[in-house]
Amino acid sequence: MLPDPAGTLPLPEEALRARAATWFGELRDRLVAAFEAIEAIAAGEGSAGEGPFPARFQREVWDRPGGGGGVMSILRGSVLEKAGVNVSVVDGVFSEAFRARIPGAAADGRFWAAGISVVVHPRSPLVPAAHMNTRMIVTSHHWFGGGADMTPVFPVAEDTAVFHGALRAACEAAHPEHWPRFKAWCDEYFWLPHRGEPRGVGGIFFDELASPDAEADFRFVRDVGVAFLEAYPAIVRRRMGDPWTAEQKRAQLIKRGRYVEFNLLWDRGTRFGIETGGNAEAVLMSLPPEVAWP
Amino acid sequence: MLPDPAGTLPLPEEALRARAATWFGELRDRLVAAFEAIEAIAAGEGSAGEGPFPARFQREVWDRPGGGGGVMSILRGSVLEKAGVNVSVVDGVFSEAFRARIPGAAADGRFWAAGISVVVHPRSPLVPAAHMNTRMIVTSHHWFGGGADMTPVFPVAEDTAVFHGALRAACEAAHPEHWPRFKAWCDEYFWLPHRGEPRGVGGIFFDELASPDAEADFRFVRDVGVAFLEAYPAIVRRRMGDPWTAEQKRAQLIKRGRYVEFNLLWDRGTRFGIETGGNAEAVLMSLPPEVAWP
Repeated sequence: MLPDPAGTLPLPEEALRARAATWFGELRDRLVAAFEAIEAIAAGEGSAGEGPFPARFQREVWDRPGGGGGVMSILRGSVLEKAGVNVSVVDGVFSEAFRARIPGAAADGRFWAAGISVVVHPRSPLVPAAHMNTRMIVTSHHWFGGGADMTPVFPVAEDTAVFHGALRAACEAAHPEHWPRFKAWCDEYFWLPHRGEPRGVGGIFFDELASPDAEADFRFVRDVGVAFLEAYPAIVRRRMGDPWTAEQKRAQLIKRGRYVEFNLLWDRGTRFGIETGGNAEAVLMSLPPEVAWP
Repeated sequence: MLPDPAGTLPLPEEALRARAATWFGELRDRLVAAFEAIEAIAAGEGSAGEGPFPARFQREVWDRPGGGGGVMSILRGSVLEKAGVNVSVVDGVFSEAFRARIPGAAADGRFWAAGISVVVHPRSPLVPAAHMNTRMIVTSHHWFGGGADMTPVFPVAEDTAVFHGALRAACEAAHPEHWPRFKAWCDEYFWLPHRGEPRGVGGIFFDELASPDAEADFRFVRDVGVAFLEAYPAIVRRRMGDPWTAEQKRAQLIKRGRYVEFNLLWDRGTRFGIETGGNAEAVLMSLPPEVAWP
């Protein structure tokens, strides 16, 4: 990028930015449809739950004071006790304190970012919680980041294999190193040092993905979203009918406490959102609906 | 202190250290007795609750791998849904990374610390939660720190006045500047920037208290403990019989979520404990038993 002391040049990759923002919105629509279909099945079967049937996502638009904003979609369902899908397209200028920490922002603090973030906390302790997030960030550089991971209370090897298998296929279609590298990165990232335990059974995590082929990177990001869409709702459907005990529910509430500990103590994304004055409700949408510390 | 390249000199204030450690244990015993008396009243009145009556504190001894340890006392009661009193006496050597952040530790990383930490989460949303902590820390310097604050869901001016009044009296007996300074420090410390709201109704907070008269500082620390002991259990007794609604209980669970957010995102004591490899159960004993994020 040319030197631009006045900050008047456009940020790069304008066309790709527009397509990424559109994609995140499309993926949101497909995820919302998949999750609402699960609630419709439960309603059809007359499952017990709270509120009107079948439960639907409620949308809430939010503006970011510094520029841009997002749409938070939240479902409080019978099967999916709390599911949140947040899409955002924001832009602005990083504070001096942040510039040194952000690639390509040292000389020109302007940024643009778009992304989707999905967190699902099912009511049943036998249905794994899950998270998926992908984003595009543009400063004087541009790159992609994201990941997907699953947090069962009682891991089932078959479910883990399905979830990992879908992400592995997305990775291997893009680059032979992606799967081993991003899987290991996920295990390292979603780790609770103070407990000496992982948050869940992992998946993938990646950041600063900026290969010479931006189209290939964007295709990979889309494939990660589709892999999550194809794998996770199917796992929910397979387990949602299994009866659970009060002891299993209690174990879930305690496991969720570890989830909160990770997100608030260690998650860099949460801290970044909080420290940059992000919408607190959107940043903390990931927190489970009910939690216990014994 | 004399230069001591071999690290063989004793840390200062050995006699005061022993008395401080003894005091924290005594205060723990008096707090435990006051809280168990509350549970005995509830059991005598046949209040509804969980578990055997009256509920008693359970003690758990823990060792710190680097040196020393503590005793965690936890009550899961009918009135006091979760009350924890932790005393610890630890010593060791600060890591290089910590030395620069700790007064008097740059040249000699050895430290000694003793303290008491109390957190109470009552079952009733009409009874305020409360916290009190005092500690003595010794490097090549020595100082006291601590504080006490109250977190009602529905603040009652009379209770706040009783709580603040007791702490104010302890402050004013020590130094005319303590109350205005430590009250303001508390308001500043227990603040959730991402929510733009305080954790509770405040109290006092102080750190690095090291006046020329260490005896006076220690007397103040004891007075803070006694003030908490005299004020808070009396507030619990006054409110514990009031009937509450499901809406009030729900508001309590959500207010507790803010408490968790503060402790995990912002509380320097929690972060210090976690980062120095403190006992996770003891450090996180402060977290409420049941929490909700709507």
